[in-house]
Amino acid sequence: MALAGGVGGAKLAQGLYRTLPPDSLTVLVNTADDFTLHGLRICPDLDTVLYTLAGLANRETGWGITADTFSTLEMLKRYGAAGTWFQLGDRDFATHIQRTQALAAGRPLSAVEAELAAALGVRARLLPMTDAPVATQVQTAAGLLDFQEYFVQRHHSDPVHGLTFAGIAAAAPAPGLAARLAEADAVVFCPSNPLVSIGPILAVPGLRDLLAAAPGPRVGVSPIVGGQAIRGPAAEMLATLGHEASAFGVAQLYAGLLDGLVIDEADAALAARIAGLGMQVRVAQTVMQDENDRETLARVVLAFCAELRGQAA
Amino acid sequence: MALAGGVGGAKLAQGLYRTLPPDSLTVLVNTADDFTLHGLRICPDLDTVLYTLAGLANRETGWGITADTFSTLEMLKRYGAAGTWFQLGDRDFATHIQRTQALAAGRPLSAVEAELAAALGVRARLLPMTDAPVATQVQTAAGLLDFQEYFVQRHHSDPVHGLTFAGIAAAAPAPGLAARLAEADAVVFCPSNPLVSIGPILAVPGLRDLLAAAPGPRVGVSPIVGGQAIRGPAAEMLATLGHEASAFGVAQLYAGLLDGLVIDEADAALAARIAGLGMQVRVAQTVMQDENDRETLARVVLAFCAELRGQAA
Repeated sequence: MALAGGVGGAKLAQGLYRTLPPDSLTVLVNTADDFTLHGLRICPDLDTVLYTLAGLANRETGWGITADTFSTLEMLKRYGAAGTWFQLGDRDFATHIQRTQALAAGRPLSAVEAELAAALGVRARLLPMTDAPVATQVQTAAGLLDFQEYFVQRHHSDPVHGLTFAGIAAAAPAPGLAARLAEADAVVFCPSNPLVSIGPILAVPGLRDLLAAAPGPRVGVSPIVGGQAIRGPAAEMLATLGHEASAFGVAQLYAGLLDGLVIDEADAALAARIAGLGMQVRVAQTVMQDENDRETLARVVLAFCAELRGQAA
Repeated sequence: MALAGGVGGAKLAQGLYRTLPPDSLTVLVNTADDFTLHGLRICPDLDTVLYTLAGLANRETGWGITADTFSTLEMLKRYGAAGTWFQLGDRDFATHIQRTQALAAGRPLSAVEAELAAALGVRARLLPMTDAPVATQVQTAAGLLDFQEYFVQRHHSDPVHGLTFAGIAAAAPAPGLAARLAEADAVVFCPSNPLVSIGPILAVPGLRDLLAAAPGPRVGVSPIVGGQAIRGPAAEMLATLGHEASAFGVAQLYAGLLDGLVIDEADAALAARIAGLGMQVRVAQTVMQDENDRETLARVVLAFCAELRGQAA
């Protein structure tokens, strides 16, 4: 099982999907970025993972569908619709329309995502962390911002002084999650933002206990390389929230949860400190530029998991 | 004020819009074709009138927006969505998304349509016949069909043995309609299907009385020319519902409501019979091939109205 947020997580998830028997992979996805816009329910991380595994992802932007057009959005702008700063392509709109309709009919998000994935030929199981609505809110000098307002509209330029996952207390792990974790050969924390992508997943009540009880090894990949995130505001966010903006800071957040962490060659010097947190360290090339990199990293992660399993046996 | 259904009605409405001071025209539009698809509220006649007056209408199909693309619909097909036989373009989707969101926020349809029209620069007032949901159902040998199922999915090929306007008993005339009718210089029944386009408007409780009390002359244009509808199933429907499939049959349906009827040159021989129903008759070229034809017919209609006003004075 892989835990993933958006773009970085989806890349490793795709590497795992192509390396493993495709039916065997479950991707557990953050839903705390989800929001409602134009009356439609949008799940950015689920969509990114879905489109990436389906081979439809726009490689240049990381989000959305490749070669998508923007006619619906342009027309919504003519109508003076709010929130047109959030880019939604015409094909992408279909996903939100289909999902919104299914949710309105009373179907749980987990069932809806399974159908969307099946329709696009994705054989991995896409599992939202919960069927309940959860919403990340970001504390900034400009006030409490909704996540997409912070992230997209304001280009994640506000220093973050606090995070709230509204609704998390009432959120139960998605149906089937416990059973899949109990059967998982390994659990991989993809290189997603540990605070706003993996963080909300871990904050679902009961989920840490399920992870701790999982029989397979738990291995992470640091999204911070050389003190910088490959993409997005993870490094700045770690710093302003009082963490070290490094692979070590990531390891601290995951201490007690992970058996091993893969860090980049650029961070080899941090290996000993990280090992001191009680997890094994694997140094590798972790920056995924192309599809080959995704599979190469996936193989490194899976070999690391096999090794940890061997040690435990 | 002009009463209109879809394509044929929209054409004359556009002629009137271009001939009259644009702010002075109210188009009262059938909403009994409205339906919900993909979770979105779709108002085919309002949309056709809106796009036509905004200069956006697709001239080849009559419905939808010119040069629209169909990416959203294609993707919905991939998801196995129901109802993808109903063609919806990407720009067109924006209209339904914007409307659905506004309705969900509790705004009445009449207010929503006024905003959509204003956003597209349409200065005429687009008024739905009612803010209440009304749904035409068609009795056929195949059972009771929803209107779009009959009209689009089954290509209006089933003989029609009955019509029901579900919800009509609870429908009140749209806000402002009574005031606008009381001020209207004239009322024009556009050449729309008298049974399923103009019929539902006339079936709104209280609306016939409001029309009867309107001070200006009431003039119609027959949508039946030489026993055939220019477009759509009006002729067959008149026949199977026991009416004469001719301009005379149309005149019978409007007897007592209209002061005058414009019929096509092809139907000049019917003039005396129609006059016998208590309305004056004007014979003209009524088939609108291009935009000039729309304005030419509008001028004929307006001159007829002026003449009737003069007789009354």
